[in-house]
Amino acid sequence: MTTINEIGEFGLIERLAAVLPTAPAVLEGIGDDCAVLRVFDRTLLVSCDLSVEGVHFSRETMSPEVIGWRAAASGLSDIAAMGGAPSFCLIALACPGDCDVTHVEDLYRGLSDAVLQAGAVIVGGDTTRSADRLTIDVTVIGDVVGERYLLRRGAQVGDKLAVTGRPGTSAGGLDALTRKQTAPELIRAHEHPCPRIAEGQWLCACSNVHAMLDVSDGVVQDAGHLSKAAGLGIDIDPESVLIDSALSDYCAAHGLDPLALALTGGEDYELLFAVDGADPEATLALFRREFRTDITVIGSFTNQWQDVRVAGDPIDRGGFDHFAPAD
Amino acid sequence: MTTINEIGEFGLIERLAAVLPTAPAVLEGIGDDCAVLRVFDRTLLVSCDLSVEGVHFSRETMSPEVIGWRAAASGLSDIAAMGGAPSFCLIALACPGDCDVTHVEDLYRGLSDAVLQAGAVIVGGDTTRSADRLTIDVTVIGDVVGERYLLRRGAQVGDKLAVTGRPGTSAGGLDALTRKQTAPELIRAHEHPCPRIAEGQWLCACSNVHAMLDVSDGVVQDAGHLSKAAGLGIDIDPESVLIDSALSDYCAAHGLDPLALALTGGEDYELLFAVDGADPEATLALFRREFRTDITVIGSFTNQWQDVRVAGDPIDRGGFDHFAPAD
Repeated sequence: MTTINEIGEFGLIERLAAVLPTAPAVLEGIGDDCAVLRVFDRTLLVSCDLSVEGVHFSRETMSPEVIGWRAAASGLSDIAAMGGAPSFCLIALACPGDCDVTHVEDLYRGLSDAVLQAGAVIVGGDTTRSADRLTIDVTVIGDVVGERYLLRRGAQVGDKLAVTGRPGTSAGGLDALTRKQTAPELIRAHEHPCPRIAEGQWLCACSNVHAMLDVSDGVVQDAGHLSKAAGLGIDIDPESVLIDSALSDYCAAHGLDPLALALTGGEDYELLFAVDGADPEATLALFRREFRTDITVIGSFTNQWQDVRVAGDPIDRGGFDHFAPAD
Repeated sequence: MTTINEIGEFGLIERLAAVLPTAPAVLEGIGDDCAVLRVFDRTLLVSCDLSVEGVHFSRETMSPEVIGWRAAASGLSDIAAMGGAPSFCLIALACPGDCDVTHVEDLYRGLSDAVLQAGAVIVGGDTTRSADRLTIDVTVIGDVVGERYLLRRGAQVGDKLAVTGRPGTSAGGLDALTRKQTAPELIRAHEHPCPRIAEGQWLCACSNVHAMLDVSDGVVQDAGHLSKAAGLGIDIDPESVLIDSALSDYCAAHGLDPLALALTGGEDYELLFAVDGADPEATLALFRREFRTDITVIGSFTNQWQDVRVAGDPIDRGGFDHFAPAD
């Protein structure tokens, strides 16, 4: 017998995609951030995202409101990753029967706040009893803005790899929470991540942006999806990765490597994308003026190899595979 | 503190519906079988349905294929309950990492078979690790056929209550599985329920059908939703409830009351509806000719009381509330 632990989440998705039939109205099926559907001669994006107690969160260290916000942010970010606009969310909640009703209301308040901030609304869902753990599934339905949406595949040789913001802050916040340290900016990044909805739509409208996804599992691991989808290698330049100053201070105080957190920390929900190698800085400068947000070229696509390397060196897989054994 | 066990699933839904904002594009939000959304000037139905190990199924008594089929059927039936046509499904699966991959493939085969039989296709989803239990969330997106969809509300004084098929067979099958008895027809009804997709669309096209839902929690409990939504009472005539012959034989052999199973057994996914009291039999006769399926008037709506009664007698609440303590 082969267990899921052995083949991992992505191995499982490949096996399932191979056995499931598809249909002409499914423009993109299993394997990207969202499914892309042809509905009423228009294009709809749909995605769902599970958050499981003991895997994605702990009720010991997080308030119900934070658990809800994070669960919704993760689902909404899948729409941002395609350059879409989220419209409607369904919330499925399995919850132990001895939960306090006010805690469940707080959880939905967190969900709803994140959904409203992204311009969407909760329209329904399901609730049921579970034996002992909370499980939340957030389904998001979104629109394509304009005619274009961005996939994981599409990067070309010579493209540059770029990222919004300063990844690693969420991982820093998780570390601070775990060690019970004070690091309000990092903890805020971990507890209330903001999907890059407007930024994703803006990048999607740029014809020189060829492929995109959101950083949910860490820059290196998510870059691996862009690499695999394009059949190209990626070389990340560690010198060009911007490190958040609060993260840098926190890491210095606790003997951590901020670059390791920036490259392998998950749940930042920044956007990672392939942009044409011909003058990407012109696009990035316009982005900075529009959003007053960092955006940086951190690497390039190559046909010299097929994996993700840092300064040309092969690296061990980083990031977070949901079926890897717990740390 | 008030726990969810104390207020129940329906109490929780009412509390949540009160705190969550809505939007003009949401024609029907929380509280019916599906949400009804205005998308691209057309109407879309969306629903999700959770199946949790230890609450809705056991891996001890059910094959992975059956677990998958039943999880999908439950979600698809929500679209049938509104008279819609399911188009696309998303599957979210939380699964222990030590699960055999072939079992997970079998589970998806069951899901996919049920989805395909209903005319829809699986387009994506999410997979993640769970500590020890399987949780499956099935999201279904469907179309309204014609311009009409049916809600739980809308029954009028003098309407008749009618039901498709012969409810109670699924509950009989569950009893047979639990007692390890041979009862192939009942077990088949429990393991492979078929949502009434075509039948729902047909009934929805009848202007004398005023309200509808699917029997997921038992005829009495689901009739309670029609009653509450209309602000009317229901009187069920026990003499008119058709009992499946295999159920009748099984109950005779095991000292069970087949009427009790028919009125309170869940997961039949039959359609329960309010039809105008003026000559409902003409409509039902056409239905029988079209589908060669039973359909029966089993009660009537009244303004004499506000709850569901059987032969005029108030009854204890039957059916299955997901947050009620386990039996």
